[in-house]
Amino acid sequence: MSDASTESTIQSTVPESTAPTPAVPAWPDGAAHPLTDTELERLHRWWRAANYLSVGQIYLKDNPLLRRPLTREDVKPRLLGHWGTTPGLTFLYAHANRAIAQRGLNAMFVTGPGHGGPGLVAASYLEGTYSDIYPNVSRDERGLKRLFTQFSFPGGIPSHVAPETPGSIHEGGELGYALSHAYGAMFDNPDQIAFTVVGDGEAETGPLATSWHSNKFINARTDGVVLPILHLNGYKIANPTVLARIGDDELGALMRGYGHDPLFFTGGFDGEDPAAVHRRFAELLDTALDRIAAIKRDAAAAAERGEEFERPAWPMIVFRTPKGWTGPASIDGKQTEGSWRSHQVPLANARDTDEHLADLDRWLRSYRPEELFDEAGAPAPDLAEAAPEGTLRMSANPITNGGVVLRSLRLPDFRDFAVDVPEPGATISEPTRVLGEWLRGVVENNPENFRIFGPDETASNRLQAVYDVTAKQWNADFEEHDRSENLARAGRVVEMLSEHQCEGWLEGYLLTGRHGMMNSYEAFIHIIDSMVNQHAKWLKVTNEIEWRRPIASLNYLLSSHVWRQDHNGFSHQDPGFIDHMVNKKAEIVRVYLPPDANTLLSTYDHVLRSRQYVNVVVAGKQPNPNWLSMEEAVTHCTRGLGIWDWAGTEVEGEDPDVVLACAGDIPTIETLAAAQILREEIPSLKVRVVNVVDLMRLQDETEHPHGLSERAFDGIFGSDIPVVFAYHGYPWLIHRLAYRHDRHSRIHVRGYKEEGTTTTPFDMLMRNDTDRFHLVMDVIDQVDSLGSRWAPLRQRMEDERIRARAYAYEHGEDLPEIASWQWGDGGDEPDQRSATLATGGDNEG
Amino acid sequence: MSDASTESTIQSTVPESTAPTPAVPAWPDGAAHPLTDTELERLHRWWRAANYLSVGQIYLKDNPLLRRPLTREDVKPRLLGHWGTTPGLTFLYAHANRAIAQRGLNAMFVTGPGHGGPGLVAASYLEGTYSDIYPNVSRDERGLKRLFTQFSFPGGIPSHVAPETPGSIHEGGELGYALSHAYGAMFDNPDQIAFTVVGDGEAETGPLATSWHSNKFINARTDGVVLPILHLNGYKIANPTVLARIGDDELGALMRGYGHDPLFFTGGFDGEDPAAVHRRFAELLDTALDRIAAIKRDAAAAAERGEEFERPAWPMIVFRTPKGWTGPASIDGKQTEGSWRSHQVPLANARDTDEHLADLDRWLRSYRPEELFDEAGAPAPDLAEAAPEGTLRMSANPITNGGVVLRSLRLPDFRDFAVDVPEPGATISEPTRVLGEWLRGVVENNPENFRIFGPDETASNRLQAVYDVTAKQWNADFEEHDRSENLARAGRVVEMLSEHQCEGWLEGYLLTGRHGMMNSYEAFIHIIDSMVNQHAKWLKVTNEIEWRRPIASLNYLLSSHVWRQDHNGFSHQDPGFIDHMVNKKAEIVRVYLPPDANTLLSTYDHVLRSRQYVNVVVAGKQPNPNWLSMEEAVTHCTRGLGIWDWAGTEVEGEDPDVVLACAGDIPTIETLAAAQILREEIPSLKVRVVNVVDLMRLQDETEHPHGLSERAFDGIFGSDIPVVFAYHGYPWLIHRLAYRHDRHSRIHVRGYKEEGTTTTPFDMLMRNDTDRFHLVMDVIDQVDSLGSRWAPLRQRMEDERIRARAYAYEHGEDLPEIASWQWGDGGDEPDQRSATLATGGDNEG
Repeated sequence: MSDASTESTIQSTVPESTAPTPAVPAWPDGAAHPLTDTELERLHRWWRAANYLSVGQIYLKDNPLLRRPLTREDVKPRLLGHWGTTPGLTFLYAHANRAIAQRGLNAMFVTGPGHGGPGLVAASYLEGTYSDIYPNVSRDERGLKRLFTQFSFPGGIPSHVAPETPGSIHEGGELGYALSHAYGAMFDNPDQIAFTVVGDGEAETGPLATSWHSNKFINARTDGVVLPILHLNGYKIANPTVLARIGDDELGALMRGYGHDPLFFTGGFDGEDPAAVHRRFAELLDTALDRIAAIKRDAAAAAERGEEFERPAWPMIVFRTPKGWTGPASIDGKQTEGSWRSHQVPLANARDTDEHLADLDRWLRSYRPEELFDEAGAPAPDLAEAAPEGTLRMSANPITNGGVVLRSLRLPDFRDFAVDVPEPGATISEPTRVLGEWLRGVVENNPENFRIFGPDETASNRLQAVYDVTAKQWNADFEEHDRSENLARAGRVVEMLSEHQCEGWLEGYLLTGRHGMMNSYEAFIHIIDSMVNQHAKWLKVTNEIEWRRPIASLNYLLSSHVWRQDHNGFSHQDPGFIDHMVNKKAEIVRVYLPPDANTLLSTYDHVLRSRQYVNVVVAGKQPNPNWLSMEEAVTHCTRGLGIWDWAGTEVEGEDPDVVLACAGDIPTIETLAAAQILREEIPSLKVRVVNVVDLMRLQDETEHPHGLSERAFDGIFGSDIPVVFAYHGYPWLIHRLAYRHDRHSRIHVRGYKEEGTTTTPFDMLMRNDTDRFHLVMDVIDQVDSLGSRWAPLRQRMEDERIRARAYAYEHGEDLPEIASWQWGDGGDEPDQRSATLATGGDNEG
Repeated sequence: MSDASTESTIQSTVPESTAPTPAVPAWPDGAAHPLTDTELERLHRWWRAANYLSVGQIYLKDNPLLRRPLTREDVKPRLLGHWGTTPGLTFLYAHANRAIAQRGLNAMFVTGPGHGGPGLVAASYLEGTYSDIYPNVSRDERGLKRLFTQFSFPGGIPSHVAPETPGSIHEGGELGYALSHAYGAMFDNPDQIAFTVVGDGEAETGPLATSWHSNKFINARTDGVVLPILHLNGYKIANPTVLARIGDDELGALMRGYGHDPLFFTGGFDGEDPAAVHRRFAELLDTALDRIAAIKRDAAAAAERGEEFERPAWPMIVFRTPKGWTGPASIDGKQTEGSWRSHQVPLANARDTDEHLADLDRWLRSYRPEELFDEAGAPAPDLAEAAPEGTLRMSANPITNGGVVLRSLRLPDFRDFAVDVPEPGATISEPTRVLGEWLRGVVENNPENFRIFGPDETASNRLQAVYDVTAKQWNADFEEHDRSENLARAGRVVEMLSEHQCEGWLEGYLLTGRHGMMNSYEAFIHIIDSMVNQHAKWLKVTNEIEWRRPIASLNYLLSSHVWRQDHNGFSHQDPGFIDHMVNKKAEIVRVYLPPDANTLLSTYDHVLRSRQYVNVVVAGKQPNPNWLSMEEAVTHCTRGLGIWDWAGTEVEGEDPDVVLACAGDIPTIETLAAAQILREEIPSLKVRVVNVVDLMRLQDETEHPHGLSERAFDGIFGSDIPVVFAYHGYPWLIHRLAYRHDRHSRIHVRGYKEEGTTTTPFDMLMRNDTDRFHLVMDVIDQVDSLGSRWAPLRQRMEDERIRARAYAYEHGEDLPEIASWQWGDGGDEPDQRSATLATGGDNEG
């Protein structure tokens, strides 16, 4: 099928190496040395301070330094947040800081257990970043009070590692994406390391379970490093975790099976002396970082010698510490430290009794705040020394505020890739193949900051021109023939059969200031419904945060779409991702349905330039008539929708009798075919044809920034005439979007209504009443002036449908006149123009 | 928090063992013996026949036995389907059959690579099942022709292992769920085994990657066995697979890490003699099945002795064979067998040239069909002998047509669990806690065919009364205190922190004729959007298949919902799952929003009795006023929506001025509060209060079986008066559902509009304009007769909002009069009635 037809281009043109041209920086690895006593003391003090600040955030609204006796009035009336994972996070952060300071590592921190938010806020406060960007939360007692009060408080900050938290690219509320975000962030950042904490609850999710395999894709020389730290604190809300209960043998085998070199650490149990814990962990972390440095050195040396570097077993750490570590050992006689009872707010009743208040007081004072803050309430000077400085602070790493490091793409002029359209429908193209030619240029011009992600379909979606200039990045084992099939150790395309993984990588890549796109089946993009929710929420919130700079949009290309699933049928048909996205904030979401090649080019140029959006682009890959020249396409896409006067039968200066509207490539074909039937059969009928590229234009201007005013809408769709609308997806969405404009229920929408099974392309349209004949019948039904006079035509349309169905059932393909239908009265090249619906199935999945 | 408050009941009441009372049947394990020469010959002939029938389905529409020379006209015009995985599937099926016949195993076959559909259709045809249920596809040449033609043909059958395929519970089109479906099917089927083929493409998905851990949950004695077979054929559409390229050491470690005992098999490469391959695989499969039999024996013996049985390392098989095995070695000089080129239709151009037609002819004849079918065209008699008989045929296992073995639940009378409601709002209950009491009875009465699945929240959702009579099933390691925390080796509740896993288990459990429910966060149920799509499609198609009997509905309880995310904030707020489901076929989907405890009881009784639906029930767990007595609740739920005359100020016989409508527990409270304000402030205004439990009632009768006629709708909502509707979710859904009824755009909907961050409960409502004050403002704006006369009241409402916001920002909790608001003029027990919004956060996640 599509693969076979393009093999010739594949065979010879793949470059052996597609590494970015600039030199890869040397791995930063300063003079590491074992923990000294001074460092130990400072590190432990830093940890105590971070824990104190975390507990303070959860419980206190006043008396932040406990300089007077704790009273009930000091305690927040509603105690919200999560303590359990927090002390482990602050411990790891403290140790990462020591390593960064010693080695000069360029590092970020990805917090899988995002509800350990107070710990990360505390860390950035201690590093000074917090007060830098939020001057109100100053480094004094007043600022501390504000720091505590604002946490999980109306008008304050959320309890998770939210966009408000400096240094974060990962909220962590919905579990499962820590590793894919981290690896996405590390692509093309060869001098960076992401300390990535994976909660053992999170580790049970599907997306996380497969994301360990990211190490088969990362390139040791041209990408950065992820150091996964599996935080095995043993409990979820109400259950033990699976990975904490399979024994170290199985867990070790699992991690080795995932391609890692696991280092096990257990500490903090049975009253172990903190100093001993720190010494042991510092040593273990040094071992991990030394191994990483050795891998980076070896990879660089291999490159020097012009040799390939085999995938190494990257270190990872299994970090087993008590849940709620350093918290109350027991409350009301029930074990709390080391139990699920620490998960959330262990002293939820702190204000209820004197005893509970005293428990809280004891807990807070156990960190000895009086030793950690100066007279004014600022962190003691030596605490700053425990942390790195400037942009080496993980909370101030520029890539974690991606917009800061974002550079615009160098885009080839898409007009140069236009297909020739001497008249509407006169030529045929495969739109995504045309797009692929332009994307080749995008890849070529941007060898370090643009990537294409997808489960397995970049070639199947006919974007394979990109393989002229790059490859699929792959660092699992190679076989000889792989080189000729576009696999290489570095490349701009990354494919793994997990939509979760691709989405997570892309999100991490974008959040750290790069550009990218994802291509996938339309039906199965629902797999990441929940992930893109979180990304859309992140964008929405960052729009409201002054210091967060805009990042590149998240761009989808959904090419194997609902109407072309001949190979796969009903299970592969679902156009509802658009509906899902439309529920998100209007300022974030854009949906485009370009009807042909030139409009697709124009659309994709636009989305790759845009910022802070989720752009959903649905476009076919099958041969499709070209409707608009590039000049017309640019105008049409800029307007977002428009009247195709060449397709209608309007009389200038007179109102049309009916509007035939369409959105989507296949519905556009059917609408034009219906228009053609009407032109021939009822020449007196004044038909207006409207095509919609930018779905958001259908909304009211008060609903969406792209929305039309009532006047503008009525200008295009008339104010009281019937509109027969052929839509790509579930019909209701059009009603929903145009709701405020449709005061007389005059819009009649056809679209997909969950009828599929095994059909030919046209039979599929008929099953869903979205075929040309049905559209003509709709017009006869809806235009009052036609009435019963046109009943014979209506019946002929029904007959045509019956005949088309019968033919498909007998022959397994559509009627020749339907399969080879073409617009207008025939051009010079009928053969070239007859491929519209006749081609084979769309998908190879 | 909620956990702490219920510990007392947990401690002592957990039964040590909660195994089903009936005796567990002995594991069937007849006299297994090595493959004899006769068996080998027969088995190989069966495999050849199955492969021949598979290739025939993909390519031929006539000349099914090649009794005349193959012509182009015999070949289908459009070649659709997938060959690559098929011969591996038929090989495994053939060997499973030998084992079943020898040992008397009670087995089913789960086909992860569902697009190998032709192979499974071929197998069931050879077993006779196919012709039993589709008499038209008879066991003769005519039937064969039909078998071939119908495949992936309009009016025929899909290319996947679809509902149309006997023996299937798993379509396999959307990849990732083979193991979770198989384990779900095996719960409580202790004498069954599921041969479960996992494709190596599928193995890259997140859901599949975590589903290996299912073995930590299955009980060796009381549940059946899953034998996973990882089909390592090496390629996806256009890429090698990850697991085929990590070496056997890592792959073995991975499988051992997942808790399995892996057996490696490589066969069929380099022209290996099929007889040798069969002998080696038969031996390996015998090893696996012997180990399984030993585990089952040991588990039974341990139970006899009253001892616990530790989780064993269950066998699994790594099955490495060429992709497109037995297909053309090469086509047009390009490697095909053993390459991704075999994935779909390797000879897609079979009709194009004589050479290609000859390739196809050679391929088909390589199976020597003349030896495999008798004169009439029926499979040769010895082929039947290669397969088991009757219900031992995997294609005829009754559990794979779940409705056949489905028994109705023995439900306790929910009326006995009613809460007392002397007058509306006079008492307070936590609805899900009340439901839990009834569910305890459901669990108790149905110890073998009802399970509760959920990621980690059954207790947090306050269903913990069920732990009085059962436990959470857990077969990973135990620690001493676990027993007192509801973990046991067998139990009716199954929790793992993966929505995918829980959904897959539940689907597998339902599809094999049992009952169940899933409880989860409302926001994160989007994680399984795509899975439930497939289940809904399965139900839709089975409704149209005569021999498929109805199965129990898939029931959700979404309790940690959008309005109560005080602990977690914005990332945990998304009510869009309802919108997602409403796109599925109306005949499948039901959505319920019971506003209080008694309506929740009535609703859940209804959904547990229902068949073939996906029931989405959203209900709170926080203390909530009880509005309806049980008698009223039953009436209200039966009607699905209704006028609450006690809440309005209508005058009998007169039209109301405005309708206040509501759906969802929190919107109901706000609506009643608004009604109360209006009653006091504008006593002359005739207000009607309508509550909606069954959301589908809002649709038109032509849209949904539960929909109202226009007349009925107008009866309840008036025909031309304003409706102010407070809705639980995204407001647009109400517009969408009521679209056909809302001819004058008179419905004004309030609901969630993606505004969250950190708030108190009432501030959260205000941010989304769904609070009582805003509803009153809406009424003033919408009722023409009120006009500017009531501007002062409108302004007072605005003032109230500003005051409420300011109070929340200062104190971190809501105004006392809001937090303790109660309906009516105060009852006898104000303390009991003041808990509505004052409680802490909803979720512990």
